[in-house]
Formats: sequence, C-alpha cells, structure tokens
Amino acid sequence: MHNRLGRQTVALERPSVILSHAAVGGRQEGDGPLSDYFDHLCEDSFFGEKTWEKAESAMQKMALSRALEKAALTPEELDYILAGDLLNQCIGTSFGLRDFGIPFYGLYGACSTMGESLALASLLIAGGFARRAGAMTSSHFCTAERQYRMPVPYGSQRTPTAQWTATAAGCVILGAEGDGPRITTVTCGKIVDKGIADANNMGAAMAPAAYDTLSAHFAATHTGPQDYDLVLTGDLGVLGRQIVEDFFARDGVDMSENYQDCGVLLYDIQKQDMHAGASGCGCSASVLCGYLLRRMAEGHLKKILFAPTGALLSPTSSFQGESIPSICHALTIQTSD
Amino acid sequence: MHNRLGRQTVALERPSVILSHAAVGGRQEGDGPLSDYFDHLCEDSFFGEKTWEKAESAMQKMALSRALEKAALTPEELDYILAGDLLNQCIGTSFGLRDFGIPFYGLYGACSTMGESLALASLLIAGGFARRAGAMTSSHFCTAERQYRMPVPYGSQRTPTAQWTATAAGCVILGAEGDGPRITTVTCGKIVDKGIADANNMGAAMAPAAYDTLSAHFAATHTGPQDYDLVLTGDLGVLGRQIVEDFFARDGVDMSENYQDCGVLLYDIQKQDMHAGASGCGCSASVLCGYLLRRMAEGHLKKILFAPTGALLSPTSSFQGESIPSICHALTIQTSD
Repeated sequence: MHNRLGRQTVALERPSVILSHAAVGGRQEGDGPLSDYFDHLCEDSFFGEKTWEKAESAMQKMALSRALEKAALTPEELDYILAGDLLNQCIGTSFGLRDFGIPFYGLYGACSTMGESLALASLLIAGGFARRAGAMTSSHFCTAERQYRMPVPYGSQRTPTAQWTATAAGCVILGAEGDGPRITTVTCGKIVDKGIADANNMGAAMAPAAYDTLSAHFAATHTGPQDYDLVLTGDLGVLGRQIVEDFFARDGVDMSENYQDCGVLLYDIQKQDMHAGASGCGCSASVLCGYLLRRMAEGHLKKILFAPTGALLSPTSSFQGESIPSICHALTIQTSD
Repeated sequence: MHNRLGRQTVALERPSVILSHAAVGGRQEGDGPLSDYFDHLCEDSFFGEKTWEKAESAMQKMALSRALEKAALTPEELDYILAGDLLNQCIGTSFGLRDFGIPFYGLYGACSTMGESLALASLLIAGGFARRAGAMTSSHFCTAERQYRMPVPYGSQRTPTAQWTATAAGCVILGAEGDGPRITTVTCGKIVDKGIADANNMGAAMAPAAYDTLSAHFAATHTGPQDYDLVLTGDLGVLGRQIVEDFFARDGVDMSENYQDCGVLLYDIQKQDMHAGASGCGCSASVLCGYLLRRMAEGHLKKILFAPTGALLSPTSSFQGESIPSICHALTIQTSD
C-alpha cells in the first residue's frame, strides 16, 4: 500500500524513474534563453507538414521518437503512453501517436497536461501495472491562436497580460527501475475557479489553482519551498507568478527565494516582446524535458517541485460568459540522495 | 504486483467494486427501450440552463450527485474523479465538476471515455492510491451537432450511416471494498486507423479498434465471447457492429450469440428514425450505468465485457483530409461468483 498523505498527495514507495526525456521547439523557443537545452529546434513553423495542426503532431512524434532513442527503447517496449494537448479533441496527440501502436490513455488537462501525464504514468508504474510508460504533451502558437483567439494573419493586437503559446513538445519515458531522477510524490489538483473571466489573463485565472495545489502538497508532506531547490509552476507568466507569491506571503510563506514559473523562463520576455510570458502545454513540458532535467543531470538541482497549471476554458465557455476553471498537478522530482 | 497479461491487459488482484451508478438522459433516451433504467430523464434539452453546453455540465452534475447519493457518500469521500466529454476542451466536465472540489484527472477518449475513466479509476484503486473514485462522462446531441457538424436549426439531412449522439451522462462510483459488481480486468486500447475518412460513418472507423482491443483481451485472458454473458461495444451502431462480427468470423470466432453494441440498444432505431443507431460518450455510459448494471444487480447478467469505442477525430482533422484514428478500452465486470 502506498502512502496517501491527505486527500490529494501520494508518496510513492516505488518511485518511478525518469529514463529519458526530449524537448522539441520552434523558432521563438530557439531564440530564447533555454535554446541550448532543446533536443530539436525547427525554424519552420510547419515542421515540414502542410498545416500547423499536422506540425503539432509532428512535434509529438519527434519528441517521443527522440526520448525512445535516448533510452534505447522501441515503441513496443512501452506499456503505456499518456498524452494530450490543447487542440479540439486533442488531435495533436491522436495523430502524433497514431503510428506507434502503444497502449494509450488520452488526457485533457490543458496546460497542466505534462503534470497530469507524469502523475498518472507514475501511479501506473508504482502500482505495478507497467514497467515503462511515456508522458507527453505539446502546443503550437499558430494552432492555439486560430483555435482560441484569431487566425495569426489577422495580426490582432495582444493585451499586456496575454501570454505567448509555446511551440514546443516534451516527452518523458518513465520506468519502474533504472538510473535517473525519481518521481517521489504525486499531488492531484482540484478544479479552482475564483471568477476570473478574462481569457487574455490566464495567469490570474490559474494562480489560485497553483496556490491551492502547492498549499495542499506542502501541508501533506510537511515541507515548504525551502525544502526544494526549485518550485516551478507551469505557465502563469509574470503576473500569475506574482499572484502566487502574494498568496503565499499572506500565509507567511516566503516564495521569493526559490520559486520560478516556466512561463517566465522560456523566453527573454523583454527582448522577445512576449508580454506576460509563455504559456501552452508545451511550455512547462519543454522547460522540464529540456532545461530542468538537464540541470538535474548536471547536479545543479537535486529536488524540485514541478507544478504545471491548466486553464479549463474553451472559446465557447468564454462566449457564454463563463469564468475560467483551472487546475494544477504537482510532482516531486529528485535525484538519488 | 498485479497480473499483467500480455501488453494491454491487467488482471486486477484487487478488483475495484462498483458501489453505485447513475444514468441521466434526455427526451429521445426517454422515448427509447431503456427508458426505465435511467435515474433521471429530462424533457427539456436545456436541463433548465441557458445553453446546451451548460445543460451538458448540468447532466454531469446530476449524474455525479445521484451516484454519490445512492452510495451514501459525500464529494469529500471521493479520492479522485476521472472524467471527460466530447466538447472542445472538455467543458462539459470542467464546468460540471467545478463546484465539487474532488481531485480530478481530465480525460479525452472521445466516446471511449466511460471505458477509459473506469480503467484508470480501477487501476488507481487496485494500486492502493485511492479508496473510492468516480468515473464519468457525458454527451449532448445539440452540443455535438453544432460542434462537429451543423447547428441543429439548419435541419441538415443525415446520411444513412450517421448515428445520433446521445443526450446522456453516466457516473460510476468505484471502491476498494464493498458490495457490488467488480471490475476484474482492464485492457488498454491502441490507436487504430484503417483509413476511413467519412465522418458520417463512425461505426466503420471505430470497428477495427473494437476488434483490435477485443482480440487482444481474448488472447491475453484465454477467453472468447462464450465466456461472457454479454460482450458490449460502445457506440458502433448497426453498421460497425456488423463489421466487428465479420472481422471475428474471419478468425473463426462466432460473435452472433452474445455480442451487442450500446449504440444499437439505446434507441428503437426504426421507430425513432435513428439511422445507424446511437453514439456519443453518453451512449455507452448511460447504457452501462442504467441498463447493464441494473441487469447485473437483478441477476440476469453475471459477467460482461464492456468495451466503449472512441473516434479521435476533430472537424479540423476532417477538413484537412485526415482519416479517423480510433480507440477502444475494455473491462471485465462481474458479480461475485
């Protein structure tokens, strides 16, 4: 029996091991400060395909293929893959995975998908149901713009609170045994909706969910930010990150030392004119699968709390006057101590 | 360690128990032959809400509330809920679950979602990560029509192979212990795409996935259709069901005795003019949560193989000339023997 800590957190007695990881990005990601950490960067936003949706599938194919290659595994050696994306009906994933023949559980967690896929893959392995499983997600600036907002060629002006959807994919291969950082706790998020209805201010909508899940995790594990080399939210951007810091400050918890947000890290926000920062499933996925896991491998980070955030809205729900329900899933990832 | 049978099937040493179940439906479902098995039927397609999307969320709220009530549980007593739907970004689910405060993993499995949610919820319980978990999904004819095809008021003519999206929701509450039918095996599907590109013939697109998963399940468990009181696919309809029978006939397996499809059962196809039958996440969900589980409780069925099917397309993928990737997840559900 695994250790359930409170209602949302499981401490894994059999932690899953990160056997390999791969990050794929586009031009903007290649122009950013984390450029060197990507496995593959493509100048062409179509990734050699005819449409951006097919490009997004191509990114998932690349990320999975590269991660399998780095772990010296074939698709047949994966027991499951858990994946999803932002597109209507998650077609980035279904078409990306179509030719691999891997048992598949499709997820929808918006930009929290990297956290959700790692959480469920870890639980499947820890439960003894899989020897190896993949966790993957993607987003694409051009597919997201035309689906959620306006077609890119319209040249719509963006508000200062808007974030830039990352054109990126990340894939992690987890195993029941092997060498690599281990996932030791999994905290499942609840839907949190504080009434923010501005679809151009995702950071404000998702920050309460991040605060809710991180608070639950800290309480359940009797830890605080000081117990991690880095606490990382998914894609709150500049504004959402500040809100999370403010919420914790009210509780007397100082997040200023070692808390960061993937949406703040991915781009040089000023120089690249990214307004409030990066967003999209591919943001936290590629920051994890590129930068963070490399920093762990190099010994700079030993224990991190990775907490991707997702906004569970659709254009239809916004048109119908709804606010934005959000969610955040958190995982402790640590190197052998 | 649980018993992995082949690559796709897990035999659960700690089967999860179905503590309760609830089915909600609309007018057409109330006019059909399974009418008496629903917990709640609503004549108003808006379910008292202002839009059909909000109506779909209302159906999920009703199904979950009713299932909790029947199990004498509060939302706080559920460790997880796993759910999804057909709407863009699964808003039927996120808005339906928003006020319950239950740790949530969002799924996208198209019409296979009842199978996927039961599979993952069973594995979480069997792995010792949850004492109780919910599995839920929904679909709504009017939300699906305007999202996938045409707004209902256009009065588009439907092709003979078209199916009618069920306006229905189903919810199952699973527990680690208690009385009720048990889920004893879980078979995870792979994406199968045989090149069918006609979005008005979902049965043909999904039948190969059903055949693939059922075959894998039969091989892994050394069983055949004769070992079940009923083998049920999700929503293949009249045509898809026939294709599955034909595929198995080629292997020398006779499915004619005890194989049925939820899409054939839900409506009186001739009288209600439902063309090829029912479809939608709510089809297999409500047939399970209404008819099938009641038939099990009454002792008419002791062991069934429940295999919901999903078509992982979107209108965009069809517009871009893509064929239809499909998936099917299967579960053995049996009463104590």
